[in-house]
This record gives sequence, C-alpha cells and structure tokens, in this order.
Amino acid sequence: MNLKIAVLGGDGVGPEVLAQSLKCLRAVEETFHHHFTFTEGDIGAVAMEKYGKPLPEVTTELCRASDSILFGTIGTLKYDANPSAKVRPEQGLLQLRRELELFANIRPVKVFPTLVNKSPLKKHVIFGTDFIIYRELTGGIYFGEKKLSKDGTIASDLCEYSEKEISRIAHFAFKSAKNRRKKLTLIDKANVLETSRLWRKVVTKIGESYPEVALEFLFVDNAAMQMMLHPNQFDVILTENMFGDILSDQGSAICGTKGLLPSASIGNDFAMFEPFHGSYPQAEGKNIANPIASILSTAMMLSHFGLHEESSAVVTAVDKSMRKQIVTQDLNPDSKYGTNEVGDFIAANI
Amino acid sequence: MNLKIAVLGGDGVGPEVLAQSLKCLRAVEETFHHHFTFTEGDIGAVAMEKYGKPLPEVTTELCRASDSILFGTIGTLKYDANPSAKVRPEQGLLQLRRELELFANIRPVKVFPTLVNKSPLKKHVIFGTDFIIYRELTGGIYFGEKKLSKDGTIASDLCEYSEKEISRIAHFAFKSAKNRRKKLTLIDKANVLETSRLWRKVVTKIGESYPEVALEFLFVDNAAMQMMLHPNQFDVILTENMFGDILSDQGSAICGTKGLLPSASIGNDFAMFEPFHGSYPQAEGKNIANPIASILSTAMMLSHFGLHEESSAVVTAVDKSMRKQIVTQDLNPDSKYGTNEVGDFIAANI
Ligand SMILES: CC(C)[C@H](C(=O)O)[C@@H](O)C(=O)O
Ligand SMILES: CC(C)[C@H](C(=O)O)[C@@H](O)C(=O)O
Repeated sequence: MNLKIAVLGGDGVGPEVLAQSLKCLRAVEETFHHHFTFTEGDIGAVAMEKYGKPLPEVTTELCRASDSILFGTIGTLKYDANPSAKVRPEQGLLQLRRELELFANIRPVKVFPTLVNKSPLKKHVIFGTDFIIYRELTGGIYFGEKKLSKDGTIASDLCEYSEKEISRIAHFAFKSAKNRRKKLTLIDKANVLETSRLWRKVVTKIGESYPEVALEFLFVDNAAMQMMLHPNQFDVILTENMFGDILSDQGSAICGTKGLLPSASIGNDFAMFEPFHGSYPQAEGKNIANPIASILSTAMMLSHFGLHEESSAVVTAVDKSMRKQIVTQDLNPDSKYGTNEVGDFIAANI
Repeated sequence: MNLKIAVLGGDGVGPEVLAQSLKCLRAVEETFHHHFTFTEGDIGAVAMEKYGKPLPEVTTELCRASDSILFGTIGTLKYDANPSAKVRPEQGLLQLRRELELFANIRPVKVFPTLVNKSPLKKHVIFGTDFIIYRELTGGIYFGEKKLSKDGTIASDLCEYSEKEISRIAHFAFKSAKNRRKKLTLIDKANVLETSRLWRKVVTKIGESYPEVALEFLFVDNAAMQMMLHPNQFDVILTENMFGDILSDQGSAICGTKGLLPSASIGNDFAMFEPFHGSYPQAEGKNIANPIASILSTAMMLSHFGLHEESSAVVTAVDKSMRKQIVTQDLNPDSKYGTNEVGDFIAANI
C-alpha cells in the first residue's frame, strides 16, 4: 500500500516521540512491502513563531493532500502560563480538528498486565479494564459562540448540538461496540441539559439499528464516580466533546501514566493519530519522553487502513519492549534507556 | 441558641436518614441546652404526587421562614428511567437552590482512617487526602437559556457567568483556604472557554486580597486525572457548576462510598445541608441506608451557626460508631446494625 503521511510534530516532546513512530513505520514498510512518504508540517507554538499563527494554511493544505496525519503534541510553558492569551498554540489543534471535520476522537484505555502496579487503583478494581471512549470532537461548547460583555463582566459559551453531529459519531461507536463486548454507554447530563436530551433521543433511535448492542445511559457525575470505582464495567463509551475531554483524561489516569495511550481523530475524509499525552515541555530534548503512546498511535493508523497484521506487529513489538523492560524511566526509574533507544528496540522487533 | 429548621426529606432513603439526623440534633439540644424546632416540607417526587410540582410554594415559604434547611435526597426509579420528562423531581432541588440563592456548594472529601480499605485507590495514593470542593451552584450551564429547534434537530444550552457570581463564591473559598492549608486551586478550561477566562481573571484579582493563600490553576481534564493520581495535593478547590458536579462525584469515589460524605449549600441569606449521596430508591424502607452522611451534614450545620463544640461532639460520636463498627452493611457486610440502630448509637454518644 502507498500512503502519503503528513507529520506534524508540534511542540515540546512531540517531534521526538513522533521520530520513533517514523522508525517503526519504516520497519513496517520494509517487512510488509508498503510505501510510505512522510512530509513535515508546522503547527502550534512553533508555527506561531514562524508564521504568526498556530495553523498556517500550508499545514492545512498538506493535511488535505495526505492520506493520513501523524500528530505529536502541542503547547509550551510560555503559553501555559497565560491561558487567556488571544492566540494560543492549542487553537491550531482545535482549528485543524474543525477544518478537517475530525469529529470522532477515539481513546482506548487498557491496563497493560505488566503495568498493573503503575495504576493508582487497586488491582482488583482495575482487573479486566479495557474500554474505548468515543468523544465528539468538533461540536459542543468548544465551538459554540463565545461572548464577553463590553465591560468585561459577563462571559458566555454556547453548547450546541445537531442531530447530524450526534448521529455520525454514534454510528462509529455502535459499530465499534458490535465488534467488541457489545455494550455502549452514553454519558450525558440529560436531567439538566437540553443538548443531552437530544443526544439521548438520537442515540436511542440509532440503537434500534444495532439490536445486538446493549445501550445504557449514565449521568456524567455518576460516570466520573463509576470510572474510579468500577472501570472494568465499560466497553464502549460515547459522549460529547467537553465530557469526553474530562472523562478520557480521567480514564488515562487508570493506567497510572499517559505515556502509553494512543488516540485517533477520525472524520469522513481525514484521519489523524496522536499520543494521548501533552507536550511535556520540561522533558523536551532530554531523550526521556516515552515514545510508546506515539508508536501505538501508528498501530491505530495501520488498523484504520486495514493493515491489521502490520498493526499487530507493532503492538507485539511494544509488548516485547515492556516485557524486556526496554522502557523509559517513567515506567522503570532504574532504566538506562531513553526515547531513542526504546524506539530503536521496538522498530527492530517489527 | 434557638433555631427553626425546615426538614425536607424528599424521596427514597432521604426521610430515613434524615430521621437519624434529627435524633442527633435532639441529643445536641439536650446536652448543650439549645432549642431546635423542626417543620417538615415536601419536595421532589413526593411533592409532585401531592401538589403536581416538585417544589410547591409552601415548601419555599417554609424554607424562607426557617434559619436552616435539612435536606434528604431526591429522585425515584420511575423518573430516573425517563430523564427527558418535562417535569422531574430534580427540578425541585435546582429551583430551590436558585430561589434561595444557595450559590456555594461545599463538599469536603476526607478519607476516614478506619476506612482506607474501602477506597478503590491504593493506600499510598490516598494518604492524607483532605480537601473541600467549592462548587458554584446557581449559575453556568445549569441555568442558562435552553433551546430546542422547532423540528427538534438542534439543541443548545448556554453557559453564562458574571463577575458578581464568581466573586461571591471565590471569597468563600479563599476564606476557607485561609483557615486550612492555605492553597486554593481554581479548576477551569481557560484554554477553550470564555467563561473560564472570566473566572481566572476575577479569581486572580480577588486572590490579591488573600496574599497568604497560594492560588493555582488547573485545566479540568488535568484535574480529573490528578484527582485519581494524587488526590492529596488538593486543599480547597474552586470551580463552576458543571465541573463541580463531575469532580465532586469523582472525589466522593475516593472514599469508596458516598454514604459518609456531607455537603452544604450556602447563600447570603439561607443555608441548606444534605448528604452527598442520592436517593438510593432500591434501599427505601429497608433500614439499610447509611445515615452518616446525613448526620455529618448536621455537624456542618452546627459549625455554620458557630456551634463548634456541638459540631465536634457529633463528629466524635460518628468516629466512635466507626471504630466500634456500629455501622451499616455498606461499611461492614457482616454488620447486624441498620439505619436506625446506627442513628441511635450516634445520638446516644453525643
Ligand atoms: C489542548 C486542548 C484544547 C485539548 C482539548 O481540550 O480538546 C486537549 O485537552 C485534548 O483533550 O486533546
Ligand atoms: C440531581 C442533580 C440535578 C444534581 C446536580 O447535578 O446538581 C446532583 O447531581 C448534585 O450534584 O447535587
């Protein structure tokens, strides 16, 4: 298969971890006889310095002309200190999601057996935890109208959803549940929000076309509690943008580290793959960032293109690195391996 | 002291657990020579059946004429099955919060040493956890304009905040932090929401009047993660209505049970005290609901009126019940004590 891949390293440790992903994809190319071309583009703080904005047109065009996008991480200490700045690196990411209509953010949460001790939760609590969050990514309060009164004393954000926005991601989530343990949990606040009531109505209707999937509902406050008390009850979770942001970060904490979790943002025309974790600017250039989340994101990408054997090869190589403790110091404080060495090991084992 | 107390049992186990609180307050009356009068009022599903609405005027008037309100719980299985019903029991609670301007919801989260094994989190993770959430309770997306398009395909909820709404609860939170470990964490999503940016601006400004309190900021997604990874880092948390709903439920899970956590909803003119937990309709009438959350809510009430010694007496009696294992079955599956017996024991030890 030929794939044109846009490579957006972004800020912080993004470029470093992404470099390990490319090593792995080169290995997949060789072993399985594919042809991948990589083209780099700027986004985030690095783009602000070069182009005066976090998402220059050339980057959007590069993405549109590619089959797939690999994304690193975004954000620097400088901008984190001032979240109210008019122009911020994150806007590049939000704009890209919106322009490419990457409406479904997919975040699998799975506890690696070798890493049970990393979790803040007790062993019996996390036993068997393996769920996927489908977070709506291009609607809701993130993109609704924002207002600030002239005198600066009243602010507002509008949360809006249409049937169409709900239905397209709902179909993705139901299909995923059908191929898994056949349970879908819609998380909302239907006892308070009008948008949540629309979500419930639309998702219930769509559920009729997936009779094999058990559909259940949970209020978001209860969900946050359940995710701590009984995370292994979930199979596929479907939720709106803001709730998904909160719950997927909470979910990532179950694993005790974000350094392992991949994610995909999918639309009808484009697909982007990125590690779950942030830009970790403190670690930039130190060869200590864990590349596994980024590498597992390429495994999600390979699956997305139907290259399941290739995807498994990547996952197996990652498992091996963990079993052999060829890992970064976040997983093993005594480890002498850095970002690069872990990347080399995994690529060599594909 | 003379206090007129409105007693709103509500639905489910509300009336049962509240009855134990009244026993304890009778004991406080006797031991410390106060005079409390209790008057019952209807709210929730029980009011809907009697008056056709979840908050009849007589109940609001009773509350306005009282010095304090003790609240049970709200919601029944019948209404939970249909969260989109036009009239719902919860609306009674939301309306009461709004009408009495109970803008500050205060939820302390503390791990009882005797109950460390109840927590889903590992012992070293929860060690020393002791924080209070100040949740704004009468603004934000809960009360902003809700719309549904004529054809029912587009819905919206408006999240709105004014400087005044933010500032009054911020002062409460800073004062609390000043009397505690002197750290206040504002939780928001200022990298995305206009309302969050207003929160940050207003809270930062107010912080200047509390120089002894260290003010820090956390994005809500990160906060949900931190609360699982390092819950003991928090002292006082301040946040808006929806985030507070989610995070306080998540926080309650740290204790492994909601059956112990009290809460207060305070305004400038009125104050209401209620257990953190829901109406638990499955347990109604079975004498198995844990009365401690409700009883500890009365301890919060006593403190609120400056009756600190009285409040301590209640807390000490509760501690004793736990040490002696005079507890309900949620805390000890082998226990032979029910709601009533636990209430009797605690009241007798005041
Ligand atoms: C950086 C930020 C705008 C973003 C979000 O809130 O969507 C991030 O938290 C995420 O979850 O990808
Ligand atoms: C019952 C519901 C409307 C309420 C809320 O969301 O405020 C409850 O979850 C709470 O936290 O008191």
